[in-house]
Formats: sequence, C-alpha cells, structure tokens
Amino acid sequence: MGPHPAVAAIRLAVRRVLHDLLTEHHRAPAAVPHALPHEPPPLVLVACSGGADSMALASALAFEAPKLGVRAGGVTVDHGLQTGSDTRAAEVVQRLRELGLDPVDSVAVTVGRTGGPEAAARDARYAALDTAAERHGAAAVLLGHTRDDQAETVLLGLARGSGIRSLSGMAAVSGAGGRYRRPFLGLDRQTARKACMVQSLPVWDDPHNADPAYTRSRLRHEGLPALEKALGKGVVEALARTARLSRDDADALDSWAGQAEATVRDATGQLECAKLYALPPAVRRRVLRRAAIAAGAPAGSLFARHIEEVDRLITGWRGQGAINLPGKVVARRQGGRLVIRQG
Amino acid sequence: MGPHPAVAAIRLAVRRVLHDLLTEHHRAPAAVPHALPHEPPPLVLVACSGGADSMALASALAFEAPKLGVRAGGVTVDHGLQTGSDTRAAEVVQRLRELGLDPVDSVAVTVGRTGGPEAAARDARYAALDTAAERHGAAAVLLGHTRDDQAETVLLGLARGSGIRSLSGMAAVSGAGGRYRRPFLGLDRQTARKACMVQSLPVWDDPHNADPAYTRSRLRHEGLPALEKALGKGVVEALARTARLSRDDADALDSWAGQAEATVRDATGQLECAKLYALPPAVRRRVLRRAAIAAGAPAGSLFARHIEEVDRLITGWRGQGAINLPGKVVARRQGGRLVIRQG
Repeated sequence: MGPHPAVAAIRLAVRRVLHDLLTEHHRAPAAVPHALPHEPPPLVLVACSGGADSMALASALAFEAPKLGVRAGGVTVDHGLQTGSDTRAAEVVQRLRELGLDPVDSVAVTVGRTGGPEAAARDARYAALDTAAERHGAAAVLLGHTRDDQAETVLLGLARGSGIRSLSGMAAVSGAGGRYRRPFLGLDRQTARKACMVQSLPVWDDPHNADPAYTRSRLRHEGLPALEKALGKGVVEALARTARLSRDDADALDSWAGQAEATVRDATGQLECAKLYALPPAVRRRVLRRAAIAAGAPAGSLFARHIEEVDRLITGWRGQGAINLPGKVVARRQGGRLVIRQG
Repeated sequence: MGPHPAVAAIRLAVRRVLHDLLTEHHRAPAAVPHALPHEPPPLVLVACSGGADSMALASALAFEAPKLGVRAGGVTVDHGLQTGSDTRAAEVVQRLRELGLDPVDSVAVTVGRTGGPEAAARDARYAALDTAAERHGAAAVLLGHTRDDQAETVLLGLARGSGIRSLSGMAAVSGAGGRYRRPFLGLDRQTARKACMVQSLPVWDDPHNADPAYTRSRLRHEGLPALEKALGKGVVEALARTARLSRDDADALDSWAGQAEATVRDATGQLECAKLYALPPAVRRRVLRRAAIAAGAPAGSLFARHIEEVDRLITGWRGQGAINLPGKVVARRQGGRLVIRQG
C-alpha cells in the first residue's frame, strides 16, 4: 500500500523541485556532478516555522532528499515577537532533527518597524535565511507557501490597485540565484495539514495567523471565504492561475519597456515626447516608471497615480507644471522633451 | 448656489463624454459640423432601466445635451422576465419623457438561455440597444455602469482565472464604432443614488439585484463588503484601477502577439516550434490562442488550461499525443511544426 494521497502529493511536489535543482546543478558551468567522490552532495534547507505547511515540507524533504543524493537541513527563525518564542524555536529544531534533517539551525532576529509589522517580520526573516543559506553553502531554501497563501497574496496585490505586477503573487523560484523555491504553490493548505496529521507530526498554529489585527489574517478568515461563497469554490485556484499568468505578462511587458526605453531617447539621452506618445500606453507607462526610478524615486513609493500624472504630460499636454514624485524627483515637459530628475 | 455635489458630479461625467463625442463627430472625415443648418444635431441615447444609476444618467444627459447642441433620447429594454415588466417599461418611458428626452423608446426582448441567465439577458439587451441606435441614427448610447459595477466585473473575471483580459472589466468606450459610452465608470453608485434623491427622481430597485441566486448579486451584497472589511475601503477604487491598467496591458500584449504570429510561421504558413519557443511565454500563449481560434476553436470555450497544455508541446516536449481543444480543434507537434486544425 502506498502512502496517503496527501503525503504522496507533498512528496511529489518536493521531488519535482529537487529534480529541477539537480538538473540546474549539473548544468551550471562550474559544477561537477555531485556523484563524483570529491564533490559533496548539494544541501537543501527547509525554512520551518513549525506550522503545518512547513512541517509537511520538512517531512517531504527528509523523505525525498536521500533518495536523490541530496543532503537535507532546516532553519527556523525566532522572530522574538511572542513570549516563549525561543522555546518554540528549540522545539522546532528538535522536531526537524527527529525527521533526520542535518544541519538544523535556529536563528534569532530583531524585527524592525519599516513598512508595517508584516513587512518588517518578512524582511528580517529573509535576511536570516539568506545568512543561514550562505553559512551552510546551501543550494536552495524551500519555503512552505501554499496555493492558499498565493491566493491571499494576489488579493493583497489587488487591493493596492497598482497593476499586474502586484497581482503576480509569489514566484516558484526567487531570490539571489534562484535560492528560494516554493514547492507547495500548487498545493492547498488542507493537503499540507492532512499530510502532517496522517504522519502524526505535531504542528504549531501561530496565533498571528488568526489575529484580525493582521490584514492577511482577516483575508484568510473572512475575505476569502466570503468571496468563495459568492463566486464558488474555484476562487483560490483561479487566483493562483491569475498570479502565474500575470507574472509572465508583467515580465514580457517589462522586457518590451526595457527595449523601448533606448529608442525614445535623443542623442543626449533625453526622453522625446513624440516618441513616447507613439508607444502603447502600457509600455509608455513602464518606460516612465523606469525613468522615475532611475532618477532616484524609490520604487516602493511610486504608485500608479504618480505615473498616470506624468503620463498626462505626454498624452494630455495643456501646459501643466512640474509633477512632484517621491524621492524629490520632479518630472516636467520642456520643449518636446520629458525631463525627470531629482531636486 | 450651484447644484448638489452629487448632481454636479454626474453632470460633469456626462459633459466630458459629450465633449469627446462632439470632437470625434467633427473630426470624422464625412461629418459636417452639426451647427450647419442642413446637418441635424447628433442624437445621444441613454439606456435606462429605471434604476438609480441610469436615471441619474438620464437626468444628467437631459441637462447637458441642449447646452452642447446635442439631441438627447432614451431607450428602455423590457426583458419580460418579471410579471408587470411591461408596465414598468411604460413608466420608465414616461419618466424619461418628463425629463425632456425625445425620442424615447421601449423595446421588448425575448431572453434566451445561452451562457446562463445573466449572459442571455445581456446579449438580448445589447442586441435591442444596437437596433434602437441604428433605427434612430444615434451617435452614441450611454450606459449607467458605475465604478462599483466595474469592481464587481473585475472580481467576476478574477474568478475565471483566465488572465488579465478578463480582469479588464468594462471599457469606457465599446461596441461597433465606439457606440457605447460609460460616463459613470469613475463614479460610485452612492453618488448616482444621491443625485436621484436630491433631484426627487423616483428610482426602481430591480429585485434581481438583491437576489442571491445571481452571482453578481452575491458579490455585491456579501463578497465585496467582506473584502472591503478585510482590505479597507479603497478596494473598489483599486479594482477599477486594476481594470484600466489590465486593459492597456492586454491590448499591448495582443498587438505584440499579432506581430509575432507572422514571424513564427514558415513559408507554408506552419507554426515553427523553435521560433515559438524563443518567444516570451506571455506572447507565445497568445499566439497559440490566436492560432486555435483561427482554426475554429470558439474563443469563449478556450480556457487558460487548454492553452497551457498546447504550450507544453513547445516547452515540455516528451513525445505527447495530440491535444483536443473545443470546437473539435486538435493541436499536435509534427516534425518541428505545431499543427492546429479542425477534425
């Protein structure tokens, strides 16, 4: 008798990612196949909070890695935001060791305040994971984000209303050199939880996940269920598919804008309004955004409405004055040229 | 003292659209400025259900049209779906006449079943409006869709998960020759309702709009409010902005795919797999979609998952068999060529 379907599903998802990693590892110009005796097998770490998603991921990695000649380790991050979080982290380390992972690290971080509590915790977490990956020379770090997390991320991006890049959710592969991998992006949260249950893995439910003070938590427990009730059960899958399609669309348009940018500058490097006008609006707005960022506007503070206002210097010119952008960047039209610069 | 802010807002929205129409009218090669004595002034119709949105629209058109030398008329469509709908239609005609609109028509339609009750009613309605516009030689038909309707449409598109075209909602200008105009796409429903109230215009609340049997109604009364509660009050505006941005993005990518399609065919018109492979995924999938539709697949039945499967003949070739698409269209890979045809 084979494993429970939920366990089979999480293992298959991890096996696919390990396969991809080994293929890349063998293809990399400097790499030598790991089977050669003088080359240590590659190490893959799982980032684990002790919650159901990442515990399921850890169990699947522990099962699949040895069969493919991959070393499996784990990292847990102690955010220090709840009393007893250090004890919790020690417990997670213990559980990961019991699964056979080695090395296993616990990393304590200090969460700042920049960008709100969720963003600050995320920044601290990824910095710690980057450091851990480098210290151990890991080929990859697996993250337990599920299709449900992806759906929530798309809705959070939708609420910003800043275009399709913000609808593209989390990438299956991200970070420096494609370090981060998300094997569970196509799996639902229920499958991960079920896989823990049938494997008798204890899981920890982070109280933050149920705290209505957090936007994501409200979305998970109220927003998304109401949307499912109105639109049907397929909403989570539809949102995840929207993420994949939007990511490819945004990539294609970004590459178009990158090529177009070179063609709309005059000999001195100034943007020519007539040439900008001739671009499709979607491409023109991306060129304007790139130019504003190149001039010093911080990408995170540059909203769709800023770019729309700059765009009106091109498409709705009636002698309007300079447009102030974040980062003290100013955009103005001067004699057929669009000048975007700081100060 | 000027009009109530809600009334000022609806009038401004209509004035802008009438301005656009007159500018186009004067620019059109065959057109003679309507001020010339032998040219009758252009006619603009409002499509009016008797609900708050379209009654507000009718009132604003009645007020603004004469000032711009435009004739204002109205059409109401009797869908015959509720008992007494003919009496209702006669009442709407009466109200539109009282506003000073002329001509005013009531058109009875028979709603079929194709595509579900909402789609069938919409198809019948637009066919009737097209006929009325042609009979009266109208330059345009104004529709009362608000920003709230737009937000609902985006969420309905999101639930399909079929990409950014389905997120682009309703266009401000659509139909043959840009016949349909939606002056209220940037206005909220509350403003339209308020404008009716302060002008003492009686409005009719269609019981369908509150009937939970309809997806849109569930979305309006449960889904969207829950999403606003989780994500904040700006959700409707963010969704409407997403619609505008997605529409431009989808247009740009469609035009890219149109150009790319010509470059990936060999001398005999066959699609070359190697050239398809070299395209960005977002462009390649659109080329494949166009090819499937050209081969006879009905656009409305061709989903993202169909195209993804055809795409794997290019990106994940491992000798798989032919892919069956809607409309008895079959896609197969043959000696470096992708063959998509019926039967």
